Amino acid sequence: TGVCGAAMTKTAGCCQGCLHYVFDYETPKTLVIPSIRVGFVFRFTQFLVVLYVVGYVCVVQKAYQETDSVLSTVTTKVKGFAFTNTSDADPRFWDVADYVVPPQGGDSFFVLTNMVVTPQQTQSRCPELPNPSTSCVDDCDCIEGYSDPRGNGILTGLCENYSTTVKTCEVISWCPLEIDTKLPEHALLAAAENFTVLIKNSITYPKFNVHRRNILPHINSSYLKRCEFNRTTDPDCPIFRLKHIVSEAGEEFQDMAVKGGILGIIIDWSCDLDWWARKCNPQYSFRRLDNKNPANNVAPGFNFRFAKYYKTPDGEETRTLIKAYGIRFDVVVHGTAGKFGIVPTVVNLGAALTFLSLVPVVADWVMLTCMGKRDLYKKHKITHLNEVADTETVSDKLNVFTRDYQGLIFSIFPFSSRLFFCQTADKIHSF
Amino acid sequence: TGVCGAAMTKTAGCCQGCLHYVFDYETPKTLVIPSIRVGFVFRFTQFLVVLYVVGYVCVVQKAYQETDSVLSTVTTKVKGFAFTNTSDADPRFWDVADYVVPPQGGDSFFVLTNMVVTPQQTQSRCPELPNPSTSCVDDCDCIEGYSDPRGNGILTGLCENYSTTVKTCEVISWCPLEIDTKLPEHALLAAAENFTVLIKNSITYPKFNVHRRNILPHINSSYLKRCEFNRTTDPDCPIFRLKHIVSEAGEEFQDMAVKGGILGIIIDWSCDLDWWARKCNPQYSFRRLDNKNPANNVAPGFNFRFAKYYKTPDGEETRTLIKAYGIRFDVVVHGTAGKFGIVPTVVNLGAALTFLSLVPVVADWVMLTCMGKRDLYKKHKITHLNEVADTETVSDKLNVFTRDYQGLIFSIFPFSSRLFFCQTADKIHSF
Amino acid sequence: TGVCGAAMTKTAGCCQGCLHYVFDYETPKTLVIPSIRVGFVFRFTQFLVVLYVVGYVCVVQKAYQETDSVLSTVTTKVKGFAFTNTSDADPRFWDVADYVVPPQGGDSFFVLTNMVVTPQQTQSRCPELPNPSTSCVDDCDCIEGYSDPRGNGILTGLCENYSTTVKTCEVISWCPLEIDTKLPEHALLAAAENFTVLIKNSITYPKFNVHRRNILPHINSSYLKRCEFNRTTDPDCPIFRLKHIVSEAGEEFQDMAVKGGILGIIIDWSCDLDWWARKCNPQYSFRRLDNKNPANNVAPGFNFRFAKYYKTPDGEETRTLIKAYGIRFDVVVHGTAGKFGIVPTVVNLGAALTFLSLVPVVADWVMLTCMGKRDLYKKHKITHLNEVADTETVSDKLNVFTRDYQGLIFSIFPFSSRLFFCQTADKIHSF
Repeated sequence: TGVCGAAMTKTAGCCQGCLHYVFDYETPKTLVIPSIRVGFVFRFTQFLVVLYVVGYVCVVQKAYQETDSVLSTVTTKVKGFAFTNTSDADPRFWDVADYVVPPQGGDSFFVLTNMVVTPQQTQSRCPELPNPSTSCVDDCDCIEGYSDPRGNGILTGLCENYSTTVKTCEVISWCPLEIDTKLPEHALLAAAENFTVLIKNSITYPKFNVHRRNILPHINSSYLKRCEFNRTTDPDCPIFRLKHIVSEAGEEFQDMAVKGGILGIIIDWSCDLDWWARKCNPQYSFRRLDNKNPANNVAPGFNFRFAKYYKTPDGEETRTLIKAYGIRFDVVVHGTAGKFGIVPTVVNLGAALTFLSLVPVVADWVMLTCMGKRDLYKKHKITHLNEVADTETVSDKLNVFTRDYQGLIFSIFPFSSRLFFCQTADKIHSF
Repeated sequence: TGVCGAAMTKTAGCCQGCLHYVFDYETPKTLVIPSIRVGFVFRFTQFLVVLYVVGYVCVVQKAYQETDSVLSTVTTKVKGFAFTNTSDADPRFWDVADYVVPPQGGDSFFVLTNMVVTPQQTQSRCPELPNPSTSCVDDCDCIEGYSDPRGNGILTGLCENYSTTVKTCEVISWCPLEIDTKLPEHALLAAAENFTVLIKNSITYPKFNVHRRNILPHINSSYLKRCEFNRTTDPDCPIFRLKHIVSEAGEEFQDMAVKGGILGIIIDWSCDLDWWARKCNPQYSFRRLDNKNPANNVAPGFNFRFAKYYKTPDGEETRTLIKAYGIRFDVVVHGTAGKFGIVPTVVNLGAALTFLSLVPVVADWVMLTCMGKRDLYKKHKITHLNEVADTETVSDKLNVFTRDYQGLIFSIFPFSSRLFFCQTADKIHSF
Repeated sequence: TGVCGAAMTKTAGCCQGCLHYVFDYETPKTLVIPSIRVGFVFRFTQFLVVLYVVGYVCVVQKAYQETDSVLSTVTTKVKGFAFTNTSDADPRFWDVADYVVPPQGGDSFFVLTNMVVTPQQTQSRCPELPNPSTSCVDDCDCIEGYSDPRGNGILTGLCENYSTTVKTCEVISWCPLEIDTKLPEHALLAAAENFTVLIKNSITYPKFNVHRRNILPHINSSYLKRCEFNRTTDPDCPIFRLKHIVSEAGEEFQDMAVKGGILGIIIDWSCDLDWWARKCNPQYSFRRLDNKNPANNVAPGFNFRFAKYYKTPDGEETRTLIKAYGIRFDVVVHGTAGKFGIVPTVVNLGAALTFLSLVPVVADWVMLTCMGKRDLYKKHKITHLNEVADTETVSDKLNVFTRDYQGLIFSIFPFSSRLFFCQTADKIHSF
């Protein structure tokens, strides 16, 4: 049992060593400097850092929040009709099914405002529109089968009379050819400015499982039936008059209607979902999205061609080609939701604390370079190890002034700036 | 050479001074406290921080990952046909080209389920639909050229017989006018619930150059030809029965088919692209996106008007106006991919290390306020500089307890809480 | 007044105590080690951290930037015409209104390249296409009212002659039925490869209020009228030849045109908005988005059905069904803009500083475990408190070597690695 006891003692000793190894607590020895000046520099710098963290990071930037991007669905429904009676075309009544393309009402809809109509086109042959590259004298000028990318069809090799004075090469194409230079100078459907559009938008922030609609909960059906969006009086009404949209974007509807354009209806769903803020309403804004500058543009405005196909009683296909000018409205939904999250909070708090831990560096620097009693402080704070004599000597040099970040501070504040900083510090104190 | 030698000696001295300046290493003097209690508080707090970092930040939140948002392309193809034979309309056979709008199969497609058809409309004149604002006694009640935004056309100024009992103002419009109150109570294309849709979705995470398809690599063509999505038995099949989609969204297809609605097919591509996780499969979910609540709504359900244009043998344009009710399916693809990134790792590790460097502050606080031997510890740890006498005195006050963060700790834990904390600490230790 | 004076004295004393409490500055006592080796380790580690922060975090990753995602609007306009003259169909001229679906030119447009046309369909009855499940011997094989999901209509219950040799069940459907196995082997509109598309893209970074267009400011209208995109010679021209797009995506236009496909036109708007960088131009790239692999696919290529509806003189509705094969071009705009932001800068700087504050831990570890004079250093740096005798003793054990992060360092570098590290350190120094 003696051996065993010795072993036990040994084990116990080892255990205790281990315990000491793990649980001995090592803490730095500190020196308290009873100087109001140094203390003030320390506290003031500390205050600045806390101010930045609380004021800027938390209040202004809300950096403690996790964020998510919006998912959105949009339904649009245009309402209105018009009657056109110009010299160019037959009188005609227009309703939604006539002027909205595509009809199904997604987040991008086009309202036709002007057009060049070429009715009764059939697959046949006709002389090209006259221009320098298509005019001809006789059939030799027209190469059969050739197709000019800027032309309207494939040459048949014949040279035909376009008018009594001009001869042009004949082409295979949908004839008669469209003459799109005859665009009405005043928009045909000028009345479109009074059409209205109902925009229904429902959004989701999937990370936070939040669903919202642009028809807010406090709005009732009867109000929705008669309201019209107005930034000051009806900011929550989802029904917009086209003219109003265009003028809020800083454009003139009648100007834009002639050659067309693209108008963005921008819905901003920036949300603060924290319970103490709970702010999540749509903000509407409007902006023209296409380029008006003619010098730096090609195919200005917005137009596209589409055709309605018919069959004549004898089975031949004819079509009415429409070059449609108008305004494409794009509903652009964007937004970011923020909600308190532990990870961003910890990261930002960590960064802030790091800066707090820089504060002593600044205070030490001020203490050891600017204070009148700096030599006294240095003597008590810094000990120099004399390796040869195995003794400690008090500090007698200026150059070692602080602990961790000296390399950094060093490169930021060269020593020549010492006077400036210390004088500034003095001023602050005497103040 | 004597001068030169002196200069060299001077230079050498300067150099050595410089070397010492740059390479002298300043390290804090420390005191080891052989107290298990203090050591335990220190280690335990350290353990909590490490636990948070490893457990929450790394495992739960994966904060070490860089993230990217998904780019997606969707193709949809509906299949199915139906035969309708109701008293309201002629018997008719319906296939995809008849009931899907638009036909090209993008990420939003509409399946027609109910409708009001107004055939044989022409540009002409007819009496308005009767309601209080359109009924008239004689021509004087109808102002020529006036158009009521809630009406259907421009008044001609005549008052005509709408029926044998009612007279209304005549309008220029597409006549006969649509009577959309005659909506069938049971959806016309009730059979649409058995239609299926094939959804092909290919995504990209551009930052990580990752491409994926919702048809997973292990799925072969023969399976794809006969499968149907089912959350439990066939979760990877990209073919969905419309009825199944609607019922998974918590709705009844036949109810929704009457007035229409919008249904979201949500594909979640949240991916963990790290090689030890490599998880990147689509998750399908379904949700109704429009508002069912009638009290807070306008134009409930989902419908739009479109027309098919015809020409009569004598060249007059006629159209069939269709007010189409149905379900718009929006394929909404979202997701975030995460992959190990050095910057977020360093930022989060940095924040964690900052909190680790707070641990001694806590341990110091406990040591200097709660421990029985706190005066002993204080005496050895903290030295007070007596500026007048140029001597150091040991600490004899309670109030200076720790180094860097005292201002912070201070504001968070007022001194009155000292007893509570220390008692708690005692309890933990005696436990 | 004596009492008052005593009170005042007391107040003043309390005040002074308070002042001392708040403004006394506590700073760690430090020891300067005049060892070039330890200093070198310290400075070198510091240098590595600074190098990482400046080089990787700032220059490579630009972690000092706030980011925002792009909002985009796209207009597309296809140009070109073609003449087809095959044995299968009548000669026909094709222009934009014929082959682009949908016509309005959004961010996804389809160019028809091949098709199966079924003209003159009417609502009527006809025998099914022959296959094992539709062939019949007599009427008993055909169940009236049954509809096979893989069939083309609802059975009438009759068994009719499909051809002179085959009898199939009769169905109610749009007749004649489409025979889509007769797809032309060479794309009908092979000439589509020479069509061009003008893409106008305007983007917004809402957070930074930055708007850009893909038609860059230095490009003038005359250049736009004649240019064509080419990665080397015309990288800024927004007009793309379809063949060029497809070949840049690594595909052959004529192969893709037969069965169709989806092609992504990817515009990358990654921007650096800081004034010293100011780089914000679109980068175009092209990629096939659908799956070519036939083993793991269903409905390969890209096609959809649409119909043109006609009315015969006697009022019967007929339609031309077109199964359209072609290439869908999806314009995918993505990008992230970065701009200097205070919060990310502070967070990353904070993380970096935390790592700088780890440097002394490393230096201490080297000093106390690898240096020859480690016992000397330890003796002067670390004091052991003897609680019983109330005296301090110098360190005489190896195991407590550093201050804050010992637990961490500990778990990362077990003690067995001491020799390796110290030897490495020695090598570095002797080098």
